[in-house]
Amino acid sequence: MTSRPETPLLDHVDVPADLRKLRPEQLRQLSDEVRADMIDAVSQTGGHLGAGLGVVELSVALHYIFNTPEDRLIWDVGHQAYPHKILTGRREQMRTIRQGGGISGFTKRSESEYDPFGAAHSSTSISSALGFAVANKLSGNPGKGIAVIGDGAMSAGMAYEAMNNAQQAGNRLIVILNDNDMSIAPPVGGLSAYLARAVSSSEYLGLRSLAKRVTKKLHRRVHSAAAKAEEYARGMATGGTLFEELGFYYVGPIDGHNLDHLIPVLENVRDSEQGPILVHVVTKKGHGYAPAEASADKYHGVTKFDVISGEMAPKTKGPPSYQNVFGETLAKLAETDGRICAITAAMPSGTGVDKFAKAHPDRAFDVGIAEQHGVTFAAGLAAQGMRPFAAIYSTFLQRAYDQVVHDVCIQNLPVRFAIDRAGLVGADGATHAGSFDLTYLATLPNMIVMSPADEAELVHMTYTAAEYDDGPIAFRYPRGNGTGIDLPDTPIRLEIGKGRVVREGNKVAILSLGTRLHEAMKAADELDAKGLSTTVADLRFVKPLDEQLIRRLATTHDIVVTVEEAAIGGLGAHVLTLASDTGLLDAGLKIRTMRLPDVFQDHDDPAKQYREAELDAEAIVKKVLEALRHNDLGVERGVRA
Amino acid sequence: MTSRPETPLLDHVDVPADLRKLRPEQLRQLSDEVRADMIDAVSQTGGHLGAGLGVVELSVALHYIFNTPEDRLIWDVGHQAYPHKILTGRREQMRTIRQGGGISGFTKRSESEYDPFGAAHSSTSISSALGFAVANKLSGNPGKGIAVIGDGAMSAGMAYEAMNNAQQAGNRLIVILNDNDMSIAPPVGGLSAYLARAVSSSEYLGLRSLAKRVTKKLHRRVHSAAAKAEEYARGMATGGTLFEELGFYYVGPIDGHNLDHLIPVLENVRDSEQGPILVHVVTKKGHGYAPAEASADKYHGVTKFDVISGEMAPKTKGPPSYQNVFGETLAKLAETDGRICAITAAMPSGTGVDKFAKAHPDRAFDVGIAEQHGVTFAAGLAAQGMRPFAAIYSTFLQRAYDQVVHDVCIQNLPVRFAIDRAGLVGADGATHAGSFDLTYLATLPNMIVMSPADEAELVHMTYTAAEYDDGPIAFRYPRGNGTGIDLPDTPIRLEIGKGRVVREGNKVAILSLGTRLHEAMKAADELDAKGLSTTVADLRFVKPLDEQLIRRLATTHDIVVTVEEAAIGGLGAHVLTLASDTGLLDAGLKIRTMRLPDVFQDHDDPAKQYREAELDAEAIVKKVLEALRHNDLGVERGVRA
Repeated sequence: MTSRPETPLLDHVDVPADLRKLRPEQLRQLSDEVRADMIDAVSQTGGHLGAGLGVVELSVALHYIFNTPEDRLIWDVGHQAYPHKILTGRREQMRTIRQGGGISGFTKRSESEYDPFGAAHSSTSISSALGFAVANKLSGNPGKGIAVIGDGAMSAGMAYEAMNNAQQAGNRLIVILNDNDMSIAPPVGGLSAYLARAVSSSEYLGLRSLAKRVTKKLHRRVHSAAAKAEEYARGMATGGTLFEELGFYYVGPIDGHNLDHLIPVLENVRDSEQGPILVHVVTKKGHGYAPAEASADKYHGVTKFDVISGEMAPKTKGPPSYQNVFGETLAKLAETDGRICAITAAMPSGTGVDKFAKAHPDRAFDVGIAEQHGVTFAAGLAAQGMRPFAAIYSTFLQRAYDQVVHDVCIQNLPVRFAIDRAGLVGADGATHAGSFDLTYLATLPNMIVMSPADEAELVHMTYTAAEYDDGPIAFRYPRGNGTGIDLPDTPIRLEIGKGRVVREGNKVAILSLGTRLHEAMKAADELDAKGLSTTVADLRFVKPLDEQLIRRLATTHDIVVTVEEAAIGGLGAHVLTLASDTGLLDAGLKIRTMRLPDVFQDHDDPAKQYREAELDAEAIVKKVLEALRHNDLGVERGVRA
Repeated sequence: MTSRPETPLLDHVDVPADLRKLRPEQLRQLSDEVRADMIDAVSQTGGHLGAGLGVVELSVALHYIFNTPEDRLIWDVGHQAYPHKILTGRREQMRTIRQGGGISGFTKRSESEYDPFGAAHSSTSISSALGFAVANKLSGNPGKGIAVIGDGAMSAGMAYEAMNNAQQAGNRLIVILNDNDMSIAPPVGGLSAYLARAVSSSEYLGLRSLAKRVTKKLHRRVHSAAAKAEEYARGMATGGTLFEELGFYYVGPIDGHNLDHLIPVLENVRDSEQGPILVHVVTKKGHGYAPAEASADKYHGVTKFDVISGEMAPKTKGPPSYQNVFGETLAKLAETDGRICAITAAMPSGTGVDKFAKAHPDRAFDVGIAEQHGVTFAAGLAAQGMRPFAAIYSTFLQRAYDQVVHDVCIQNLPVRFAIDRAGLVGADGATHAGSFDLTYLATLPNMIVMSPADEAELVHMTYTAAEYDDGPIAFRYPRGNGTGIDLPDTPIRLEIGKGRVVREGNKVAILSLGTRLHEAMKAADELDAKGLSTTVADLRFVKPLDEQLIRRLATTHDIVVTVEEAAIGGLGAHVLTLASDTGLLDAGLKIRTMRLPDVFQDHDDPAKQYREAELDAEAIVKKVLEALRHNDLGVERGVRA
């Protein structure tokens, strides 16, 4: 462990008001101190580093010029907000970031008044900043809404929808486009090419002409048609046209690491009578830390590392991750099936689609942060005879819910949904948890919904989905490593709607879906030891349910417990509905459903999160014992198992 | 009834292949015949008229030039596809459009091979056309993907996401921008202003220079930087810059009613080596039918009408519609509460927000077809102390599901969701049904979910939502007229999570949520007449449930039946989960859940749809009687009620 860097200026900056007491020429040093402090902190915790390194100067400049927290500063996605956190009273807490009980890796309203709007999914910042700006306009409050958004996040439709509505805020809305030509993966699409042209077609202006031009642009009151036309022409020369066409005043591109440029430009923008304004700032992800700059992903997300060498602590070794098992399985299947395609929305490595893309580049599609488009694009591919796999995290598939309903399910098109990050996800917290997919997918007609209990099952389900051409099919699996089970040489095509009994007993029946199976088996051991012979079934499918199996277990056991890594409305609800539909409940069925609790759980170690959620072996045992003691009206009956 | 117009050319056009045998100079007459035929058909059925009238010539030209169905022609939204239906073998079936058993008012895959991708929600066409184009590219099929999309639909983020990905299709993708400056309501936002500038800044070119220019643009193989720059400059002069910046070749604007322009331009576009291409076509909604042209909404949706006068059959009189009760109630509440705002996504009249906007224009926001932005914008307003109501149809709220989860629920912001078109919707069919909202909302922590049984309850719930500042709250109500109940002079603030007993009995308990209450009461009468004394409760809330009431009724009645206008995962699932959690099921509880069936129901009269769904009084009675006869294992027990 290195000693903490010396930070004489930063030591006197607790909140932005302190920062504003500094002279402009001190901001360079302050920035360097913030950068050093952040590197030191993250070297001990791990976390998102590269994005924050790229916006150190921007963070300093924004808090220096704007009157935060009255001016509402919103960091899109929020993982680049580490310098912001350091400058807003959370410097020491940085040493707890993303750890249980510590501060969040994203912005969060409950954490600080300087986080007016939390984030973690991309592209929400312009809409929310516009909400703040318009509310202030209505109430006569002078505060501005300031959104800082990356070029990758700009590829999402939501950002465009917001820009299309921005005019109503006038000069109360400021959008800072943080263009680092790099979100998590390299950006894709027309917008990215456009921004690259904009940056390459213009030299950065010298300070004097820059200030002059910005002043002229933003403070001119008379807007003759000719002046407008001139402005448009000028906008185009420096790449602003697209934004000006949507109604913004465009300023830029400017060097986001040059405080001598940032400060006067932002000052001008702040005092502008015109608006809304988009400031195009060019930054480098990982800037100012050599190991990050040299790395392919610019240290997007890091484990603990050595500050001097940049060497990261090795990731815990273990069985292959679910994402890689999926990607490799799909790549292998595609060797003999030319119809298989894979679609990712800016998450090629996170979803394992990178593995597929390496083997089959023509059939891999990274659509950018554009889940809506990605799903309907997949539907178009399916309608033309391909076998598309839309590989999207559970929480991000929420972005494309209408497309799943309207374009896929209503038309009964065979789009395959490979849904990663199902259930609780650990350090990324509530915003990234995949809690609702079973509920929101299993309610849809035509949809098949599966969940594998381990990585071998994931291989089978990937193959089953590939071979299933009758309509949409989804399989959801967790973040992280598999169980270490041997992977099958030859995948099996599973029978749709059929579960399997993993262990036979006769008193307690546990119906498991997904990777809680392991905990269910542990619970079964404990229950057996208490004389409660326990059956464990892996249902594999929540839709359609294995009615025959459920009926058999319900009528031959004293109690049935369902276990799933999902919120209310999924497996438990479907089993209960089946049981009531078919009269299984009429004469009494002791049945309990174990699911995620009705709260958004904070980030923590996943095992701790599941313990808190009461979804581990201990909780299963407890649930069974309590239920068996319980009589019908909730009164202790005194019967012990 | 007028006699059918004479259509000598159209009489010989059954499918597009017949159309392609005509000489170009005959297309004017054919267009006139299509228009006359469509007006005649819709005058007898009602339906969407204005949009179709605007694209008669475009429909004829597209099928004339392109090789449909191998070239995949996709009409965005699909309600402008009536001329397309007439030209693709469905001319006679037009007389059954939107009626039970008849053809759909939108495009539909199951209806015709000329409908390669169904639609009804807007802005999906570019993504799906891109899917077709890319699939063809992969398989070496020469067919193109052609999307026809309105300027209103272009305001949705999904269209932008698709444009941002269009380059990969090359010349296999063609986007026809049908710019009529009018979707359902007048369009809003920066894009609309941009298109207006593009059209107004350029005269339509003469045929000769138009053709020359298009040819030059699309068939030039050498693209020097200078030529590119020239092209950009030219693009801007005619308004194409925004699209060219996203990677399209832009052609236009051209007059969409002038076949002498459309035919050669489309021919050039078809044969282009360059792509993707966007053709900007300017049309007039309602074109060619004087009463439509003179009407404010251009006969967007019509009842039956007299062809000569244009006079429409009066809409069935009745109690006020839910949408108007909502809009008027909210407008009234806002008189004394300056924090109340209303947000609509391009549906001001459909949601009743027009009533609010008239009274409080500063606090009404039409964001365009941009539900994602609308919800997060509302969240921003709420975070700054306003009381925003996001008034969005149930089916369209699916577009903003992630924003509901991530921006509203996780942050527990008091956004009010006024959800119209819940349940089955009649003539618009499956794509517009609001079947899933109870499920996808009630699974979310922090969310309150209500549904009114009648329009008086809607008044109370609107008020309750306005006064509830502790987090998000939603209320969902159906399309159409209320029950005719007196509206309250003073709204009541309902207690959160409390239902009401509407009728007391002691054998059968019906737990109703929403406007099926009326059918539940009818069923209760019938059951009473059979000696089965029936309680009917209106639960008002699905989240939180009224546990006390449910427990009381479950323990004092022989059978409990839940009734809701929603798919699996909603009220029934939540009641069952509560019952199993609390041990109510342990000793036996005869409970049945009545909900929408697990299919997408076709369009029909709503009463017929609910009969088909087995959600009317008769079905409730039948369900109760069957359940009471039913023993636990599904064997007739011989017990009759």
